[in-house]
Amino acid sequence: MKFNTSISKIVPGDHIIRGQALSALIAESSFAESIYLLLKGGKPSATQAVIFQAALVSVIDHGMGTASSMAARFVASGGNSVNASVAAGVIALGDYHGGAIEKAMKQFAGIVSAKEFVAKALQEKTTMYGFGHKIYKDADPRVGQLLQVCARESFTSPFIDLALAVETEIASQKGKKIPLNIDGLIAGILLELGFTPKQGKGFFIIARTPGLVAQVLEELQTEEPVRRIDEEEITYTGSLPNRSNT
Amino acid sequence: MKFNTSISKIVPGDHIIRGQALSALIAESSFAESIYLLLKGGKPSATQAVIFQAALVSVIDHGMGTASSMAARFVASGGNSVNASVAAGVIALGDYHGGAIEKAMKQFAGIVSAKEFVAKALQEKTTMYGFGHKIYKDADPRVGQLLQVCARESFTSPFIDLALAVETEIASQKGKKIPLNIDGLIAGILLELGFTPKQGKGFFIIARTPGLVAQVLEELQTEEPVRRIDEEEITYTGSLPNRSNT
Amino acid sequence: MKFNTSISKIVPGDHIIRGQALSALIAESSFAESIYLLLKGGKPSATQAVIFQAALVSVIDHGMGTASSMAARFVASGGNSVNASVAAGVIALGDYHGGAIEKAMKQFAGIVSAKEFVAKALQEKTTMYGFGHKIYKDADPRVGQLLQVCARESFTSPFIDLALAVETEIASQKGKKIPLNIDGLIAGILLELGFTPKQGKGFFIIARTPGLVAQVLEELQTEEPVRRIDEEEITYTGSLPNRSNT
Amino acid sequence: MKFNTSISKIVPGDHIIRGQALSALIAESSFAESIYLLLKGGKPSATQAVIFQAALVSVIDHGMGTASSMAARFVASGGNSVNASVAAGVIALGDYHGGAIEKAMKQFAGIVSAKEFVAKALQEKTTMYGFGHKIYKDADPRVGQLLQVCARESFTSPFIDLALAVETEIASQKGKKIPLNIDGLIAGILLELGFTPKQGKGFFIIARTPGLVAQVLEELQTEEPVRRIDEEEITYTGSLPNRSNT
Repeated sequence: MKFNTSISKIVPGDHIIRGQALSALIAESSFAESIYLLLKGGKPSATQAVIFQAALVSVIDHGMGTASSMAARFVASGGNSVNASVAAGVIALGDYHGGAIEKAMKQFAGIVSAKEFVAKALQEKTTMYGFGHKIYKDADPRVGQLLQVCARESFTSPFIDLALAVETEIASQKGKKIPLNIDGLIAGILLELGFTPKQGKGFFIIARTPGLVAQVLEELQTEEPVRRIDEEEITYTGSLPNRSNT
Repeated sequence: MKFNTSISKIVPGDHIIRGQALSALIAESSFAESIYLLLKGGKPSATQAVIFQAALVSVIDHGMGTASSMAARFVASGGNSVNASVAAGVIALGDYHGGAIEKAMKQFAGIVSAKEFVAKALQEKTTMYGFGHKIYKDADPRVGQLLQVCARESFTSPFIDLALAVETEIASQKGKKIPLNIDGLIAGILLELGFTPKQGKGFFIIARTPGLVAQVLEELQTEEPVRRIDEEEITYTGSLPNRSNT
Repeated sequence: MKFNTSISKIVPGDHIIRGQALSALIAESSFAESIYLLLKGGKPSATQAVIFQAALVSVIDHGMGTASSMAARFVASGGNSVNASVAAGVIALGDYHGGAIEKAMKQFAGIVSAKEFVAKALQEKTTMYGFGHKIYKDADPRVGQLLQVCARESFTSPFIDLALAVETEIASQKGKKIPLNIDGLIAGILLELGFTPKQGKGFFIIARTPGLVAQVLEELQTEEPVRRIDEEEITYTGSLPNRSNT
Repeated sequence: MKFNTSISKIVPGDHIIRGQALSALIAESSFAESIYLLLKGGKPSATQAVIFQAALVSVIDHGMGTASSMAARFVASGGNSVNASVAAGVIALGDYHGGAIEKAMKQFAGIVSAKEFVAKALQEKTTMYGFGHKIYKDADPRVGQLLQVCARESFTSPFIDLALAVETEIASQKGKKIPLNIDGLIAGILLELGFTPKQGKGFFIIARTPGLVAQVLEELQTEEPVRRIDEEEITYTGSLPNRSNT
């Protein structure tokens, strides 16, 4: 089996990551900048670093009730290690849970006209990734907060403009607001920074892992094992044995 | 890196598992017997095969509400593959969820007198593995059912006798029945069959995986993504920002 | 959150699985039959049970070197529990590792003419699932062995005939044998038994888990932690720091 | 089932994390500071933030050959999602792979005299956590680099002094240097910052996840499926079938 990599290499007295000495990164580079370097292969500008970092922070946690938090907590509750429990949370980060960043990146990269894109999507009833949220019906507050940072840092992008234009078109053509969500805005930001859609998926995993660690540590510290849904809460819709069979 | 194994080897025209030709296993060996062979390195007798198989069946599934089922379902609900979802369920099978088989095997292997063991455990308030169940307060019905198969097949064991003696001693010394549970009985059976405690852990993983697969397939087929605990069900016990800070 | 299931339910003194009493399954049902019941919702006939079981045994393990075995062993080697390690192996069972059963089932279900299917696939260079194997260039020995069991039990199926016809057509049209592999044959068998493609994926996970458990137990028992690919085996294709930068 | 948490809560127009408004964190807090807040429940001082961040960067990646990288790559190679593959890497971060931080924290917290600790450990041949490394025989270069940052920021700690004193005692009493490794130094730093050992385990998971994401993305982009150890590299130490048995 062959082992080729362009990510990193151990050298005498140091470790090289994407062409940078780890010693220099430890001394000078923020964690967010180091993540950017690891994924993209080069370091961000100062403005890019600020925006990238704010985007990471914006999705660092979203409460105890998310699918990933609950998967991680059920695993922890079964008597498992911190790493095994967090891993269960990471597995949960699938197509419908953070996965919209990757899909919205692909989608935005292919849109020529926001108006036509929305018209076609509404007509063909296809999913528009990065819009709508189970909890935030009117507006995802994280979007406005992250846009404020973009404005403060004079970070602009045709992809962000496009995402906002799609939001406006949906409201106009559908007659009902379906707000741009944080996945959609991050998709626009990462496209502007030159990341690929698959890296967008990786971005979300990195951003949310601290939240999952916190959820797991709390479960282990404060809860008794083992979590279980009470039988009374479960509706059985299957059949029962014939008396003659049992 | 070195790769040594005594489990199996691909040879021209066949595959060798624990010294048996896979071709012969496919033709003659039951799935349960093949599992026994894989774990133990030799084939079971006819009686051993029946008991081993009945033990596997006894824990093949235990409802939608278990920690492993819920972890697997939350992961499936996030938009993930069958294998990734089932894996989350397998991770959940920790020390407090199936892990009692391994611990009860270690425990039973070291008991000389049931009476003294229970007396000491009650005095020192240490855990007696394989006794008691969150749902089954009086008796774990699977225990009686599996014991019937043992009786039918004339399968006896000092380890099973010991498990039952401990149950009797607890009732006598504590004045309250804490019933032998299915983990405890399986521990006695696996000790009699010559398995190690770690193999006991592996046994439960194998036995429960079909149940987890069924739970995941149902979740994917019948439920809308994404499961989430409603915010109203969650009690926040932390602090709120000072007004001056926000 | 709602919890609906048609799989199983705990009732006083018993547990119901797909309408069958667990007590009856423990007494009478083989592990393979119980798996069939859990997945499909009904019990197999005697012949169906034999074929289903032989198919399970045929892929119970495929050596130490598979991707799932190695993932599980690396995890075990890092100092982890049996369940966490086996889970890593289960995660590995993706689209290219056991996943061909599911894809071949979809494929075979849609073929009208083997001749036209192969002609079109060769012309358009699309993947034909269930054919070819990295190790078995001429024939996957498990296919012949499992076909012998089918013949012995007089188990026939148009789907198996179709799989073999495609194999013949490939040899004829391509001028080179690309043998039907075990995934392809199992796909035909499971279609005949009335399973869905997603259940086919679940089938493989269940079948291979015993092998993964054996691999993990061996790793934990016989190997020193921690496995690591030696740096000398790794080729670094990235850049090195400029001297002026470090 | 009850759901209590002190980590975070969704409120109208914002999300509260450990008593801080997410809107404020997005605007002002670095990713490392936000991680610190999530784990510890309060924000770090400026110096604490710099040291915590440098420690995160110091273990962000350690090459393609680690057990976690290889587990993640084997899973990716089997045809799996980015999140499922990264999760396999996270599972690998067990007692012997990053787990030394947690163990060294417990150990250092209980040492009164470095001299007596080393004498006793050498005599009883118990493990001293945080010392020695498979690759770095003389010195773990990351230790010196991170200590330089501590010196630059005037960050001192009796726990760091203790770790270095143990290193000196080992060299003196054993007559051979077994260098303080990065796990050991991070253990001292995290103790000084007031973290618990279990949080130390969480720290490593968070720090290494970016590296695992990079390894998985590279595997998916540059390698053909499926990785497999060649049969020729594997030594089979088991038995072969008797001719008469097959």
